[in-house]
Amino acid sequence: MDKKYPRLGRRTVKLSEGVEQAIHSVAMLAQLSEEGVLSAGELAEYHGVKTSYLLKHLQALSGAGILATLPGPKGGYRLARTAAKITLLDIVLAVEGPQPAFRCLEIRQRGPNPLPVKPTRPCEINAAMLRAEKAYRAELQRVTIADILKDVAAGDDGSIAARGCAFLAIHERRQGA
Amino acid sequence: MDKKYPRLGRRTVKLSEGVEQAIHSVAMLAQLSEEGVLSAGELAEYHGVKTSYLLKHLQALSGAGILATLPGPKGGYRLARTAAKITLLDIVLAVEGPQPAFRCLEIRQRGPNPLPVKPTRPCEINAAMLRAEKAYRAELQRVTIADILKDVAAGDDGSIAARGCAFLAIHERRQGA
Repeated sequence: MDKKYPRLGRRTVKLSEGVEQAIHSVAMLAQLSEEGVLSAGELAEYHGVKTSYLLKHLQALSGAGILATLPGPKGGYRLARTAAKITLLDIVLAVEGPQPAFRCLEIRQRGPNPLPVKPTRPCEINAAMLRAEKAYRAELQRVTIADILKDVAAGDDGSIAARGCAFLAIHERRQGA
Repeated sequence: MDKKYPRLGRRTVKLSEGVEQAIHSVAMLAQLSEEGVLSAGELAEYHGVKTSYLLKHLQALSGAGILATLPGPKGGYRLARTAAKITLLDIVLAVEGPQPAFRCLEIRQRGPNPLPVKPTRPCEINAAMLRAEKAYRAELQRVTIADILKDVAAGDDGSIAARGCAFLAIHERRQGA
C-alpha cells in the first residue's frame, strides 16, 4: 500500500529566503568604505529582491546589533561591528529568531493514558534533537562574514569583485561627503 | 527607527510536528513483541493526535524502509529493522525529505549586474550553510531509537514503562494469534 507514497512531500523545514538575502546584504555592507552606507532600496536592487521584503530582514539585523542605521537623506545601513565579529549564526538567529527548529510539544503527556505527573526531565527525544541543533549552531558560529569574504576572494577570477565594485562605485553614499 | 522592531517574528525554520510524532511512534513500535503490530489509529490514539495526519508520516516511514506494513484485518505497522539500526536522522529525512534546510537561490546571479558567467564553484555562503547542516545530520545519525529507549529506561521511575505497557496490553495485535 505504501508503494503509492514513495516520497511524501517536500521538506517542510526550510530556512527562509531571508537568510540568504541577509547574509549577502551583510557581506555587501562589509565592502563599504569607512563612511559609506547603502539604503535598503539599493541593497534590494543589487540582489534583485523586493525592498519591502528585504527591509524586514535589515530591520531584524539592526535590532540584533549587526547593522547600524544612519538617518537622513544620506542615510542607510552599514555594519555595526567589523565583519570578523559577525558570524553566520548571528545572522541566522537575527532573521529566524532564537528558537530551535525542533519544538517538543510533549505529546507523551497526551492520549488516553498520559504520563501521570508532569515529567521532571526533558524527553530524551527532545534532548537528542537539541544536541543536533547545538552542533548546527556551533558550525555556523565558527564562520564569520570576514571568513566568507576571504574565501570568495581566494576563488574569484575577478568577476565577483568587479560586480560589487561597479555597483558600489555608483551607489555607495558617504556620510562625510 | 529600529527600536520599533526589537524582535521580528517567530522563527520560520521549524521541524514539523510530524517529526515528533514519527519518532514517538517508532519508539512505541520498538516495544512490540516479535509478532506484534499496531494500527495507525492505535498509534494516533496513544499519542493524542489525528489519525489522518499521523498516517501520512507512517506512510513516509514505510516508504523509507523504517516501518513494515502488514495487510489484513490483523494488520498494522511494525519496525522493518531493529531499533538499533534506526537513527533519528533516518526518521527526520523520511518525514521532512532529503533536502537541506538552507536552499541557495543563487541571488548572486540576480540584480542589475549579475555574475557574468554561471559560477562554477558553489557560493561560499551556501557551502558554509551546508557544512552546518552536515554537522546537524551527523549528530542525529549518532542516535538510534535503541539509544533513546535505553536513556528513557535509565531515567524512568516506572511511570513511563507502565504507560506504554498498559496500552500495548490492550491494543497490540499479534499476527500469529
